[in-house]
Amino acid sequence: MAFDFQGIATQFVTHYYTTFDTDRKALAGLYRENSMLTFESSQALGTANIAEKLTNLPFQKVKHHFDTADAQPTATGGIVILVTGQLLVDEEANPLKFSQAFQLVQDPQGQWFVFNDIFKLVFG
Amino acid sequence: MAFDFQGIATQFVTHYYTTFDTDRKALAGLYRENSMLTFESSQALGTANIAEKLTNLPFQKVKHHFDTADAQPTATGGIVILVTGQLLVDEEANPLKFSQAFQLVQDPQGQWFVFNDIFKLVFG
Repeated sequence: MAFDFQGIATQFVTHYYTTFDTDRKALAGLYRENSMLTFESSQALGTANIAEKLTNLPFQKVKHHFDTADAQPTATGGIVILVTGQLLVDEEANPLKFSQAFQLVQDPQGQWFVFNDIFKLVFG
Repeated sequence: MAFDFQGIATQFVTHYYTTFDTDRKALAGLYRENSMLTFESSQALGTANIAEKLTNLPFQKVKHHFDTADAQPTATGGIVILVTGQLLVDEEANPLKFSQAFQLVQDPQGQWFVFNDIFKLVFG
């Protein structure tokens, strides 16, 4: 546990939701060809499919707020993160709660990317 | 993605919460010496510390119900799972919502165990 997995996780999550809310198509740069997304139990594999799903979600504007982002290192140098938070969609007044699990992995250039991404709305 | 990661995940999650609710100390068998637990942002490392934390939580009886358990394979043969669910503690009438992320890994004997475990209550 020698590296600052929590610091990397917090920085990543902040960047991820800022990008999601301001320039959604730029999220593609955070995935790679073998990355996986499960969004509300619907699956996508690879940067192109993931970017297509994320840019075609049924809302125009979204604002994420994450409450917690707890991280752990994996056995193979990755980072697992569990996020809990809330999001506001379009002109809705009431935020929706969500949970999201990520596994971050480093590419050969040392750049962190999303290998696993599982997103789930939590209904109250 | 050749193996049945979703089947293994569903079977594991069912077993995990049944064990949690009926024989909490037996959860120790699902962790190994390098396993990590983050329970409500408090951390434990290794079977003994994790078992101590789980058996000393501030409630006697608990009943988990999981609503969803979405799984993905990892790059290194593991399985990442995001669970959303509800739990009832002691004589409380109102369930608490929770989210939990696991990474399962196989030991040299092929037995699946919990390498990463991050648990978080989700308040409404």
